[in-house]
Order: sequence, then C-alpha cells, then structure tokens
Amino acid sequence: MKQNEKGRFAYDGLDRLMHEKARLGILTSLLTQRNGLTFVDLKNLCNLTDGNLSRHLKSLEEEGLVDIQKSFTNNRPQTLCLLTEGGRKRFIAYLQELERVVQDASIAEKRSKKNTKPIFNA
Amino acid sequence: MKQNEKGRFAYDGLDRLMHEKARLGILTSLLTQRNGLTFVDLKNLCNLTDGNLSRHLKSLEEEGLVDIQKSFTNNRPQTLCLLTEGGRKRFIAYLQELERVVQDASIAEKRSKKNTKPIFNA
Repeated sequence: MKQNEKGRFAYDGLDRLMHEKARLGILTSLLTQRNGLTFVDLKNLCNLTDGNLSRHLKSLEEEGLVDIQKSFTNNRPQTLCLLTEGGRKRFIAYLQELERVVQDASIAEKRSKKNTKPIFNA
Repeated sequence: MKQNEKGRFAYDGLDRLMHEKARLGILTSLLTQRNGLTFVDLKNLCNLTDGNLSRHLKSLEEEGLVDIQKSFTNNRPQTLCLLTEGGRKRFIAYLQELERVVQDASIAEKRSKKNTKPIFNA
C-alpha cells in the first residue's frame, strides 16, 4: 500500500445519521417531493410501520433535516413531512460520498474483468 | 401516492451485513485487490483500529464473504484477507441497490432544479 493511500476507503462522509436503510428511503422520498409527503404516503413508500417511521422522523427532525407539520384536513389530523433546505444540502453531500463508493467499486470490478461486461450498471 | 408505488423507496436490497460504513470500506478495498490485502494494509486503507477491523472481518468471514489466511513471511505472522467469489457476487448485488438510491436521488434533485446544474456529480 502506498503511503498516500491511507484512509483511501474510509468514507468519512457517510454520515451515520443518514446511513441507515430506512432513513435513506425517507430522505430520498422527501427529496422527490419539494412540497412534502404525508406521514401515510411516506410510510407506504418506504414500507415502514407507524412506530418505525415516527422514530426515524423524530431523529431526523431533532437534527434539523426534516420539518414535521401537523394540521387538519376535512377535520382529520394530517402530518406533513418535508426536507429542510439544510437537510437537502446535507443529504446531497452524503449522496456524493455514496456515489464515490459506487464509483470506486465499479472501477475495481471493471479492472478485474478487463474486456468483459461489468456486472453492475455503473 | 399511486398504489403501484408502495415500497418504491424501501430499498430491500441494502443488505444490513454490508450496509455499515466500515464494512463498505473493507469490501470495496478487497474488491480492488483480487489477490487480497494484508490486515495491516486493510487497516490503513480504511482508517480502522485493530480491534474494529478484527470484529468486522470476523462477521464477514462467518457469513462467507471474506476468507482470512494466516501464514508466516520471513518468520513473521501475516494475515491475508480476500473477498470470496460468493462475497463478490453478494457485494455487487448490494452495490446495484446502492446505485439505485443514488440514481433515484439524482433524478429527484434534477427535477426540482430544472435547467440548473445538478449539485452532485451523477
């Protein structure tokens, strides 16, 4: 190993707050909807239980990544979840690091299989 | 939300065994080196402590993803770590799902910023 390669695969940018399967789903869902998603839609899109989604949203809200707005629609309570501007920036920074993992692995895989089709679609 | 979008962002393929920051580094490092990496090189590439690396390698070995070979080189003990063929396949399947997260997020980000340069490099 060359000296300048120390920490080459440490991926320090993979922020643990966002690097959790369910949270990745929640944040990606919210990134697709600038105007937010209801709690029910988010739950279904991510295949989460009420309890699980509540728990993750609470952590993300505490860190300022999401905004939770409670209101009434036709006399029924509704919870709207939105990505904050800070949350969007932080998630995009995380995604850049995630993309680096995919690219590093893709290059490695291509190198090891020269002149053959890479297995994954990068 | 459309009915057919249920679970659209569940990302079930993000296998928890590999979806851990340090393990992503270990597996990507090993993917770059078909002939394996020594424990010391792997530790430095991933910026891990001896204890942390040992613990993760043990879990990955137990699941058949990595192969650990102990030998002596110039009378000094050496540990060589390799990705198994099964491990390579499983990691590549995981990476395909990871790429799906990056692509979903990239599309969402581009849509929300039409006619402007996307922030991350997808």
